[in-house]
Amino acid sequence: MENELEKSYVIGLDMGGTNSVFGIVDQRGNIKSQTVISTRAYADFDDYVKASVEALQPALDAVGGIQNVRAMGIGAPNANYYTGNIENAANLVWKGIVPCAEKFEKALGIPVRVTNDANAAAMGEMTYGVARGMKNFIMITLGTGVGSGIVVDGRVVYGSDGFAGELGHFVIDTTDKARTCGCGRKGCLETYTSATGVARTAREFLENSSEPSELRALKPEDITSYDVFKAAEKNDAIALRIFNYTGKVLGRACADFATFNSPEAFVFFGGLTKAGEYLMKPLREAYEEHVLYTMKGKAKLLVSALNGSEAAVLGASALGWE
Amino acid sequence: MENELEKSYVIGLDMGGTNSVFGIVDQRGNIKSQTVISTRAYADFDDYVKASVEALQPALDAVGGIQNVRAMGIGAPNANYYTGNIENAANLVWKGIVPCAEKFEKALGIPVRVTNDANAAAMGEMTYGVARGMKNFIMITLGTGVGSGIVVDGRVVYGSDGFAGELGHFVIDTTDKARTCGCGRKGCLETYTSATGVARTAREFLENSSEPSELRALKPEDITSYDVFKAAEKNDAIALRIFNYTGKVLGRACADFATFNSPEAFVFFGGLTKAGEYLMKPLREAYEEHVLYTMKGKAKLLVSALNGSEAAVLGASALGWE
Repeated sequence: MENELEKSYVIGLDMGGTNSVFGIVDQRGNIKSQTVISTRAYADFDDYVKASVEALQPALDAVGGIQNVRAMGIGAPNANYYTGNIENAANLVWKGIVPCAEKFEKALGIPVRVTNDANAAAMGEMTYGVARGMKNFIMITLGTGVGSGIVVDGRVVYGSDGFAGELGHFVIDTTDKARTCGCGRKGCLETYTSATGVARTAREFLENSSEPSELRALKPEDITSYDVFKAAEKNDAIALRIFNYTGKVLGRACADFATFNSPEAFVFFGGLTKAGEYLMKPLREAYEEHVLYTMKGKAKLLVSALNGSEAAVLGASALGWE
Repeated sequence: MENELEKSYVIGLDMGGTNSVFGIVDQRGNIKSQTVISTRAYADFDDYVKASVEALQPALDAVGGIQNVRAMGIGAPNANYYTGNIENAANLVWKGIVPCAEKFEKALGIPVRVTNDANAAAMGEMTYGVARGMKNFIMITLGTGVGSGIVVDGRVVYGSDGFAGELGHFVIDTTDKARTCGCGRKGCLETYTSATGVARTAREFLENSSEPSELRALKPEDITSYDVFKAAEKNDAIALRIFNYTGKVLGRACADFATFNSPEAFVFFGGLTKAGEYLMKPLREAYEEHVLYTMKGKAKLLVSALNGSEAAVLGASALGWE
């Protein structure tokens, strides 16, 4: 009988709307090889699985074959940890319920776990990253949207239906001027602190002031969070105010989130964290200002140290060690 | 060797600022006997423990002695599940850190667990009440303040320091007109949806309108949530509006809380729930209106069915079965 614990590798799959990135990962979080296929090119999910296994074969051969692989972890949009299914993902070509874990298990002959990308990121931080050894923390991913993965007693919170941890859709503004969110409601955190939220703040701030800014050279609708970052680097006053505002909104929200699980840390990940202290300084200040007195000075506010391009694959692979 | 599982009883202690209520509870949640002593009468915690054990003796004799008791659970203000200590409780006579579990363990010779009253209430609902069989739910206690106990995967969330689950101090109003809270901040949920919050709403509504109301017969500062309930029963328009507002604020807050652990249910407990549908109807409506679309129609919004005077003791005792 083989000993599962001796198997030295796991497969991580970061399934995006455009590309699927596979990594073979060892126990220390080294990615031995990466393989990329198109997610969009296969109208039938069975064909996608077949193409995945074929593409993975050389990488598997290089580690001595699938018999040295313990399990596979998949980070995918709308992936349900409990069922192993991808459920009604708006950004994938496969509609309805896709039995993702089951199909890959059959094709590879190893256990497969799925979860969404923010939960995968939390697993990655806990397994290989800044949250190693932590039992209670909150992962916040700042990308096109805002995702979250909540860890309680060393386990990701999936809730009653597998879809817990949607802090990006926490309503932080209940006033009439709250921003409209893609979810159909108003005032969700992600309309303020995602990359698109920052661009939105930029347009608002530029419109509501006449202060000079190099951002005025751009068409308002073309401004990205990266443009704001570049301007901030040149000490552009409006750009600095934009990150200050974004950090404050996020810090205040995190102060409220702390009432849930009194976390040891918040870990921030995603493109927006490139803004560094432009974002993190006001974030920390607002957090400490607003958090309940019994929690002041307790939680660490950390930026992920995982390599951005590898973090998603590492996060997904971490599910394979569970 | 004795078999712990065969021991048929647990002791529950509901430690309030004024009185301490002990109950001997069987596995079905029947309270075999209740014993009350003053919490305030003992300046030294050792004397309090001694008095407790003496007062409990007849009740213990009636169930065949302490050898038939498996463990003791204590619900107390600022009680830390991890350490077993009561830490800096403003409403108790003992200041600083009180090694509560340790002292009772020594005095009784059985395991002792402590937690705060809202977490104890959550344990009680999970063990004997409407949350039996549930793995993910949120308990909200509506008393003088607002407390909460969050259950994830069948376990109460204690967080990194034992003080998780402070949803009463979630800030739900960030505007200038937000109400000042006893915690030193502004806009906390409990300033709106506690019994004192309802009384505050009553004063505001009466002041900001000239509509007739039987509440106007009372001095504004004397109005209680019970007065508002009595007026609502007589169809008093302002009283009905007060509960409508309170329910909406709470429903909206719960819609946001759901993003955390996607709970199967919210369970409401405490004096304010006596308002029944005056409170629960707007609460349910606001919840369904505001909750994220993926969670609509999923969570039950339930009122505790445990007898109010017994619930605290039952909740504390539930810790003894862990």
